[in-house]
This record gives sequence, structure tokens and C-alpha cells, in this order.
Amino acid sequence: MMNQGQIQGSTGSTPTSSSTKKQTEQNKAVDMSFTIEERGKPNTLDYRVFFRNTEGKHVSPFHDIPIYADEAQNIFHAVVEVPRWTNAKMEIATKDPLNPLKQDIKKGTLRYVANVFPHKGYIWNYGAIPQTWEDPGHKDADTGCCGDNDPIDICDIGYKVCSRGEVIKVKVLGTLALIDEGETDWKVIVINMEDPEANNFNNIDDVRRLKPGYLEATFEWFKKYKVPDGKPENQFAFNGEFKDRDFALKTVKETHEFWKSLISKKTNAGELNCTNTCVTDSPFCCSTTDAKAVVDAACVFGPEDPIPSAVDKWFYV
Amino acid sequence: MMNQGQIQGSTGSTPTSSSTKKQTEQNKAVDMSFTIEERGKPNTLDYRVFFRNTEGKHVSPFHDIPIYADEAQNIFHAVVEVPRWTNAKMEIATKDPLNPLKQDIKKGTLRYVANVFPHKGYIWNYGAIPQTWEDPGHKDADTGCCGDNDPIDICDIGYKVCSRGEVIKVKVLGTLALIDEGETDWKVIVINMEDPEANNFNNIDDVRRLKPGYLEATFEWFKKYKVPDGKPENQFAFNGEFKDRDFALKTVKETHEFWKSLISKKTNAGELNCTNTCVTDSPFCCSTTDAKAVVDAACVFGPEDPIPSAVDKWFYV
Repeated sequence: MMNQGQIQGSTGSTPTSSSTKKQTEQNKAVDMSFTIEERGKPNTLDYRVFFRNTEGKHVSPFHDIPIYADEAQNIFHAVVEVPRWTNAKMEIATKDPLNPLKQDIKKGTLRYVANVFPHKGYIWNYGAIPQTWEDPGHKDADTGCCGDNDPIDICDIGYKVCSRGEVIKVKVLGTLALIDEGETDWKVIVINMEDPEANNFNNIDDVRRLKPGYLEATFEWFKKYKVPDGKPENQFAFNGEFKDRDFALKTVKETHEFWKSLISKKTNAGELNCTNTCVTDSPFCCSTTDAKAVVDAACVFGPEDPIPSAVDKWFYV
Repeated sequence: MMNQGQIQGSTGSTPTSSSTKKQTEQNKAVDMSFTIEERGKPNTLDYRVFFRNTEGKHVSPFHDIPIYADEAQNIFHAVVEVPRWTNAKMEIATKDPLNPLKQDIKKGTLRYVANVFPHKGYIWNYGAIPQTWEDPGHKDADTGCCGDNDPIDICDIGYKVCSRGEVIKVKVLGTLALIDEGETDWKVIVINMEDPEANNFNNIDDVRRLKPGYLEATFEWFKKYKVPDGKPENQFAFNGEFKDRDFALKTVKETHEFWKSLISKKTNAGELNCTNTCVTDSPFCCSTTDAKAVVDAACVFGPEDPIPSAVDKWFYV
């Protein structure tokens, strides 16, 4: 069975290990940093954000960035796709080799999420936890719906506005279960460990108490964000209630197990691209040279196009 | 007595004129455009935004830009000091020659207005109407308080995010009377005439109906925006109620009369700098050469410094 220990730069994850040495390794935090390599011109169809690790090796943000920054402490990595207060719907391209960030496209044009009053763009740093997968073949026992075929989404409530493609270390606080067109789409509420107040946030009730209105705004945001595009309000499991830290941790860990089956080809990947460079025992692991060729084939980086002014409209729904 | 007719590029403003020709001139819209000339590096103490008219002549945004774009239609000019969703408290430097935009300074450091949840920066394009002055020597009959010594402030609710220093044409919809440290500080609600929906907005109730929540948010914003800086909540006249279009028009026109007395030296200017280049019969009118010398003496324009990340904090008050 796949585990973290087999992934470069990661820590052991066998929970039943009895060796003291192994135990020590298990508790050691992963101090990794990643850099981005942009291709194409921002705000065009060709724009991509690829990732490299500290060795300069190209990595997939979906498969190669370790889920855990510190497994013993339940500190996870998260990849920031959409910085707070921005609108461009950037996401990990799960079907493309090396899974760069890419802007979602609707009807041939770049997708920018509408501003729903009183909110400006996304109200958190929005992103995903690597090495997780919401299996569309698995019906969730709680929600009664299958997964949406993506890594699990996060909303980082820390005060720092992250940059696109930034890989941060986060603490899990709770989760909201969005039901998007019949699929379970977990939105895990996390806080960046770098936040000076991170110590005060350990569970969903801390958010309710210390950031009054933020959970309600989060619920409203997800409920209404597609209405300006002519879609109905989104639905939620659990009557829209946020589940707590333990529930969220269980969910994240479960999606990590689904990912393990995916990357080891125990589950059929379908359209997903599982090419990776660090999961050494995965049948999808490719050479550094092959990975470089993927990035080199992408458009050359250039100055950004302006964001269309229509994106600045505020909608009152 | 000073009037609009004496100001270059402006229309006549003598309301009792009986000549047909004069009447025609009075009703003609002013189609002026202005450009900005930035000096110093943005986000530093030296940064300034000067203004030029279509002839390339340096002008004061306080004194030289005509109050009216179309007097007969009650269309006003407004100078955008703070674009929507930004935080830098830029303002017309009333005490400096030619009154460039300049960032307010508190305790030696640049002032950025805090984000009060759920809002991000200013929630309108915020600015001022030229050729108006809230006379500190005049006690307002309605509010019982004197003016704050500044041009009258506007909140543009149009959907376009304007640029810093942009001069727009606006329609007056209503007003809120903030009482700031015992001074009357009118916040006039306007809409950019360029907004595709401007025709639908003619009075304060149209805002209430078509942009639900925006007036309430405006009130809350002004009430709380200084709280993160350790100040008490702001107070309002009229129990915080918005006054309608006619009331607001009366207020704006009254402040224009105060400005006329100021610029013609009938009222003592105190620390205000009334240097101008277009109010030809003003004792403060200076030559183009003198105006150019003022701008040339300012720091050379350079690339912007980053905005401190602390400005990104969200406050829950």
C-alpha cells in the first residue's frame, strides 16, 4: 500500500510503527519549499503555473507535494489556487500532465467568479490539499453523494493574502459539505500556520468566536456564487452546518486513502493525469527529463493581459 | 462675485441670466478631460498626483476643475482619490500648492484604512467634488456643526473601479452626514454617468431598491472604519439616515458658494493653499510657468514600493 514514506522529502506515515527511530522520523516536520514556474501570459487561455521542489525538479502539485507538513501534528500542505480578494478561477489541472494551475474555462472564455455583494472575489485564500482525491466512485456515507473527482478544497482564513501557487502549511479547523450537481465537494476550513494568531484557532468554534460572521459569510458565498452566472443557489449536506475539526480530519484522511489507490493504479484514473516525479513506486512516475519536456512544451511566459472590467461588477442577489 | 463663467472651460452659472445666448451656454455640458502626472514613488511619503487639463496646463483639482460637467442637468465632476477596494487614504492636499493627491500620514507613517469585515478597503470609488469647501467658519443649520475645511466628499456607487486621480462625471443621489470630531463631514452618494445603469438611479431610494444592502454597508463602514485604529465609532446627524437628492444638491451648491468666497479671498483661507491656474479673477491665480515650477520641484516618479502586508489584515469589530 502507498504511504508517505515512499514519497521523496516526506515523512513516514505508518501509524503502527514500533521502532523508536521510525517514530522519531514520523514526528519530524517536513520543511519543504516549492517555487512556481509560470508559462504563457496571465489572463489568457495559455497561462499555466508549474511547480518545482527545492532541488529544482518539476513536480505535480496534485501528486508530488506531500499531503503532510507534519503528520504527527496534523499539519497539512495546501496549494493556493486563488488568492483572497481575487476572481480568476485558477485550479489544479487534474487532466493535464504535471497538473499545473490553469484558469477554468466556460463557453470558451476564462472564468472569473462574480463579486456577490458585500464580498470582493474569494473571501479566503482558496486551494487544495495535495495527495487527496474525492473519488467519484465512492458514495460518502454522510452526504449520500459521490466525490467530485478533484483534490479536496480548502479555505484558508489566515490574515495573509497568499500568492497564486504558494504552498502553505495549514491546520484543519472544520468543514462544510457543498453538494455541487449531486457531487460531494468538501470545503475544508483551515488556517495558515504562519498566521500570528494560529495558536488561537484549533476548532470550528474558534472561528465562530474570533472571526464573527466569517462562517456565515462562507456559507452565503458558496450558496450564491454561481447565481450571477444564471445558476441556482448551491445545496449543502447537514443543513449547511459546519462540521468540526475531527470530522474534517477524518474526511481529509479518507480522501488521502482514495488518492493512494489512484496513484498506485488500484483505482482507474479515468481522465485524470497521474504523471508524477516523486512517488517512486507509482506506475505513473516519470523521469525528470520527461517532466522538463512537459514544461518546455508550454507557451513562453509573457506580460499579463488586463482583467476585463466586467469582472469588477458587484452583484446584489 | 465669482462664478463658473469666469473659469476656463466651464459654463456660466448665473442663475438669473436673461440673455438667450447666455442661457444656451449655461446648458452646454463641459466636455473636459484631465490627465494625471505622478511624482515620487507610490506607497512612499513623497508620492504625489498632479493634474493637467487638455491643454497640458497644470491645474489644481480643488480649484481649477469645474464643479459642473453640466450645470443644467446637475451633473458634477468628481475627483477619485481612493479607487474601490483599495486602502491607501489618498486625498487632495488642500494645504499644498496646486493641491496634488497625497497619502494621509498618521504618526509619521502612510495611512491605509483598515479592512473591516466583510469589507475590503473602500467600498465605493471615494473622492471629492472640486470647487466645493466645507467652511469651518459656517455652522450648518441642520447638523449644528461646522465644516471640516475640505472639499465635499463623494462615494461613487457605479460598477466601474476607477483609477486614482480619474475625473468622472456624476449624478447626485443623496447624502449621509457624518459628524467627525464635532465637524460636519458630508458623504454625498453619487453614481458615475458612465455606468450602463446610471439612468435607473435618480434618488436615494433607487440605491436602496437596486443595490440592496449598499446603503446599510455604507453607514456601517463609516461608523466603524476607525475602530481598528483605536478610535471610537463615528457619529452621524439625522440619526444616521440618508438624505435625498434634493437635500444633497442643496448641500453641494452651498459648499460651492463657500468655495467662491474662499477663492475670491472674501473668506480667509487660513492654512489652505488656493493657488490655481484657471480662476482668472482669483487673487490666487498663478502663471503656467509658476505652476510648472511647483510640479518640477516634486520628487521624480519611480516604481512603487510594496504595500505593507499588515494592510491585508481583516478586522472583526
